Amino acid sequence: MAAGEPIKFGIIGCASIAQKVSRAIKMSPLSTLYAVGSRSLEKATTFAKDNDFPETTKIYGSYEAVLDDPEVYAVYVPLPTSLHLKWAVLAAQKKKHILLEKPVALSVEDLDVILEACKSNGVQFMDATMWMHHPRTPQMKQFLDDPENFGQLKSMYSTFTFDAPPHFIENDIRVKPDLDALGALGDLGWYCIRAILWAVDYELPNTVIASRNPSINGSGVLLSCGASLYWEDGKVATFVCSFQANMTMDFTATGTNGTLRLDDFVVPVAENKASFVKAAKSWWAKRLLGWMPRTSEHDVSTDLTQEALMVEEFSRLVNSIKTEGSEPDTKWPVYSRKTQLIVDAVKASIDKGFEPIEVVS
Amino acid sequence: MAAGEPIKFGIIGCASIAQKVSRAIKMSPLSTLYAVGSRSLEKATTFAKDNDFPETTKIYGSYEAVLDDPEVYAVYVPLPTSLHLKWAVLAAQKKKHILLEKPVALSVEDLDVILEACKSNGVQFMDATMWMHHPRTPQMKQFLDDPENFGQLKSMYSTFTFDAPPHFIENDIRVKPDLDALGALGDLGWYCIRAILWAVDYELPNTVIASRNPSINGSGVLLSCGASLYWEDGKVATFVCSFQANMTMDFTATGTNGTLRLDDFVVPVAENKASFVKAAKSWWAKRLLGWMPRTSEHDVSTDLTQEALMVEEFSRLVNSIKTEGSEPDTKWPVYSRKTQLIVDAVKASIDKGFEPIEVVS
Repeated sequence: MAAGEPIKFGIIGCASIAQKVSRAIKMSPLSTLYAVGSRSLEKATTFAKDNDFPETTKIYGSYEAVLDDPEVYAVYVPLPTSLHLKWAVLAAQKKKHILLEKPVALSVEDLDVILEACKSNGVQFMDATMWMHHPRTPQMKQFLDDPENFGQLKSMYSTFTFDAPPHFIENDIRVKPDLDALGALGDLGWYCIRAILWAVDYELPNTVIASRNPSINGSGVLLSCGASLYWEDGKVATFVCSFQANMTMDFTATGTNGTLRLDDFVVPVAENKASFVKAAKSWWAKRLLGWMPRTSEHDVSTDLTQEALMVEEFSRLVNSIKTEGSEPDTKWPVYSRKTQLIVDAVKASIDKGFEPIEVVS
Repeated sequence: MAAGEPIKFGIIGCASIAQKVSRAIKMSPLSTLYAVGSRSLEKATTFAKDNDFPETTKIYGSYEAVLDDPEVYAVYVPLPTSLHLKWAVLAAQKKKHILLEKPVALSVEDLDVILEACKSNGVQFMDATMWMHHPRTPQMKQFLDDPENFGQLKSMYSTFTFDAPPHFIENDIRVKPDLDALGALGDLGWYCIRAILWAVDYELPNTVIASRNPSINGSGVLLSCGASLYWEDGKVATFVCSFQANMTMDFTATGTNGTLRLDDFVVPVAENKASFVKAAKSWWAKRLLGWMPRTSEHDVSTDLTQEALMVEEFSRLVNSIKTEGSEPDTKWPVYSRKTQLIVDAVKASIDKGFEPIEVVS
């Protein structure tokens, strides 16, 4: 990497996911945890203490104060989605590079405002989809790209579900229409959609149709839903996301010659090791008496967790802008935007009585 | 079981699947392989020889001859689907109990004619869905029925795919409109649909919608397709069947508290042992740093293969009719009919441009 001191991070908001990402900021060698701000100084103080923030961390009683600190070079924004537009735009205007929690926005229109602010202020944008940064991810992609052992991609299935306790279903930020109006679709479906797009090199599907079984709370927020995505060449993907089913994180892709499977794609079961299963050229035994899946399980070890690797990659890009005058990387905003486009299409399909939605980029 | 000599089976037709089922008839202690008939004596003779039929097996040059043999007590019918109506009805009229290959008919209307013939002639009907008879199947059902560890069923996913070679795609019986007009839907989707219905105690879904990506050959026969099934209470199931993707036989069911998975539900990878995976009450580790799938893999051993157990169960029912004057078991025709209803609904949805089809029993 290029020379330069570690990127000083500010965190605005004390969501539970910030426990994990603040730890990642501390773990990554290219970043330091410099400041945290909440709407109350007391809350920020408690959060910093509970999460073993460095003694030197600046504690602020407002989000603005973090953005106004000239030492803060990048911000991690784990605020409720409805606040992303305001605070991400303000952060960009203050020239802070932005690592934004997902879902990045309530709609692609909002996201475009955020991305434009980032672009015009020359700051890096990246969403906090952690699994993208696990070393397992490129290894799986290599298999999907193998014409001999995987072949042409035909179908995908992805899930992210967990059985949220009653207090979550009633009171969590993620079920409140004024905070996270996309509910399970934004919180969980985001990952499934990203995985599907990742597998097809971000080629957008033509058509998205929501499944007819969404569960919607009294405020109109999705607690469970799903959709199927269709591509011109016949590829199909189906996903299910839910706050109302046992925890699953499945991703399966089947090609003409091979199959990729894993059941913990969002968060690996263990921090330092993750695995996936490949099968290639599975075929019948003689007289159809059985078959040979030719399956192999691949373990991928990592010293840094996927969230620390995410912070490291983001910090590397920021450092490159800072020390080498590089342009912000444009790949990450594109991934976010395409994911958001599909989130929006699923929502539109549900709102229109499960009509097919044509995806227009 | 009740006393009685082994049930004498006749086989009409020499399809490749008959290699496996004739072996099963020999393996099952309640049945003997008594006769085989093909449209040509030569073909029947070769088939019997190639598959080590007993020396005493009667070899006939027509299907009628098998049905006219008074010693034949039950027939296994592996003929192309378009011939089922004629030959199954004739077999019933000749008082032969019928083990019928799947898909059992081209439509539920045809099946109803077959089932009525069986009923009015007092013969047992069973379709040849082998996996239903593996000892793994009731063990999995026990888990699905466990309110504590599985809970309320929410979603299912099932696949049966294999990458058929060019000569199959061009010439196999299963891609010919005059022989097996249902193509991959009848040959492979049948199993997925059965698994889905089995998991919900054969409660029919309200609505079936085909996936928008079927692959259809020049003669209008399905090479690949899929569908989603929706129940009143919000349950959803999606399946994919294809002659054009790597071999997979997935079944996954997720409940509020647990998850069931297996990847060889149709034909276990090995004949004498099969496994499935249960997960229950999977949940986050502290600070969302990982999660605990609480997964356990269950091996189920069997002395007899699932197809031999199928023949044994069928023979047990036939023997009970024969020696005790029992009525034919009514469960198996119901399972077949419900499966066929959904096959028909998927076909109708495809034919109508992927419209939702209301399922009426």
